[in-house]
Amino acid sequence: MEDKPKLSIVKIGGNVIDNPDALQQFLSDFSKIEGAKILVHGGGKLATKTAEGLGLKPLFSEGRRITDKPMLEIAVMTYAGWINKNIVATLQSFGSNSIGFSGADGNLIRAVRRNPLPVDFGFVGDVTAVNATLLQALLLQQLVPVFSAITHDGKGQLLNTNADTIAAELAIASTPFFDVNLTYCFEKNGVLLDSENEDSIIEKLTFDYYSELRKNGTIHSGMLPKLENCFRAAAAGVSRIAIGSPEMLKQTDSSFTLITN
Amino acid sequence: MEDKPKLSIVKIGGNVIDNPDALQQFLSDFSKIEGAKILVHGGGKLATKTAEGLGLKPLFSEGRRITDKPMLEIAVMTYAGWINKNIVATLQSFGSNSIGFSGADGNLIRAVRRNPLPVDFGFVGDVTAVNATLLQALLLQQLVPVFSAITHDGKGQLLNTNADTIAAELAIASTPFFDVNLTYCFEKNGVLLDSENEDSIIEKLTFDYYSELRKNGTIHSGMLPKLENCFRAAAAGVSRIAIGSPEMLKQTDSSFTLITN
Repeated sequence: MEDKPKLSIVKIGGNVIDNPDALQQFLSDFSKIEGAKILVHGGGKLATKTAEGLGLKPLFSEGRRITDKPMLEIAVMTYAGWINKNIVATLQSFGSNSIGFSGADGNLIRAVRRNPLPVDFGFVGDVTAVNATLLQALLLQQLVPVFSAITHDGKGQLLNTNADTIAAELAIASTPFFDVNLTYCFEKNGVLLDSENEDSIIEKLTFDYYSELRKNGTIHSGMLPKLENCFRAAAAGVSRIAIGSPEMLKQTDSSFTLITN
Repeated sequence: MEDKPKLSIVKIGGNVIDNPDALQQFLSDFSKIEGAKILVHGGGKLATKTAEGLGLKPLFSEGRRITDKPMLEIAVMTYAGWINKNIVATLQSFGSNSIGFSGADGNLIRAVRRNPLPVDFGFVGDVTAVNATLLQALLLQQLVPVFSAITHDGKGQLLNTNADTIAAELAIASTPFFDVNLTYCFEKNGVLLDSENEDSIIEKLTFDYYSELRKNGTIHSGMLPKLENCFRAAAAGVSRIAIGSPEMLKQTDSSFTLITN
């Protein structure tokens, strides 16, 4: 295991993408990570802004967004288009030979449209396969893949997909070739014991402790799918999984949550 | 020279992109081309439609479009986003392992922003370098690159670039490694002697004949930059250059114009 080269996979969310200065700083820090690396980015507010500008009304079902055909077009335009290419061009300016992808490119991430029963979320995909051979070949060519959260079903259909899940799936698929380090950057400094108290960061979250905090309701809503992705990656052999703010990349003593089995 | 592998580079314009059935048929035909191949696509009407939908007014100077910041964002969203990824997903469904790019990706096409004097066209780039080493490596991995007409300046700026020029530059940069075949598909069956007569196709256009037809005004306006790209490619060692309709790819006896030095 020790002989495998290191691979850092970092996921950033909308809070970084929507702030040009924060994004610039993050990409500068990311470009300094040594060794093989992959960036996965979420969407940010551009999709919503564009949809509103075009007069489209976002559809929801049970509080969750539905990706109908016009929204898929906007998701692909903004995530795989402007956001992805702007990140790639910026990383190029920092000397990182980045290369932007959707899951359709090189058949890198294949998905299946989510079962329309009981709730039809529209053109939303669940990942079924990662083309790890091509991904490894690109990384060995010193390229820095930048993934938007768009996948395809292999039959010509693009699908909107959760970016946290994409990061976890890329990490899991890379474990045969790399010693993988998976980092989720979001708006907090880590997983909080008390969502009202920014200092209540859980330094180390084991699966048992998570199960307890989940049961008693301390960890809830949006954190649940994020942590499920983390523990799935941990169980599949991803070496190190951390959740925190983009400050984490600076390798200073900033706090974060380490996820362990 | 005879020992080099064959590389087919095909450029399609908006007329194919704007017609879903024609695009599907074209991509099916394109996927059947044997050997290494590259697709370059223009924009089509989606950018204009999106700009209008968002209430942006297109700016012109001397009849030529100006790419201001909002228009660049829309060009990147539509060309490198929806159109590029939709083409890639469709080619994947036809068994072509396509991979979509802007020039920023892998630093594949670098450009410089056009001199703002005498006319400032905004964020428009003229190609300065193609990363032919990476392009060759990707082609040797049986990948099918699909290029949108977006480039970058290496300093973080994306630039709108002429798709005909991109096809010519990719062809020229590939001549050291490949026996290159460059095909421009557009709305006519070839270069016409009489623009009112669809049957007046020039079968073979040499540089001398072109110079004559240009001088006497037979060939004018939009055809001039297209043909300049063709003759530049011919002079630089591209083996075969043809202009015609997408029907050309079917290798039937459809007519087209062959460009020769």
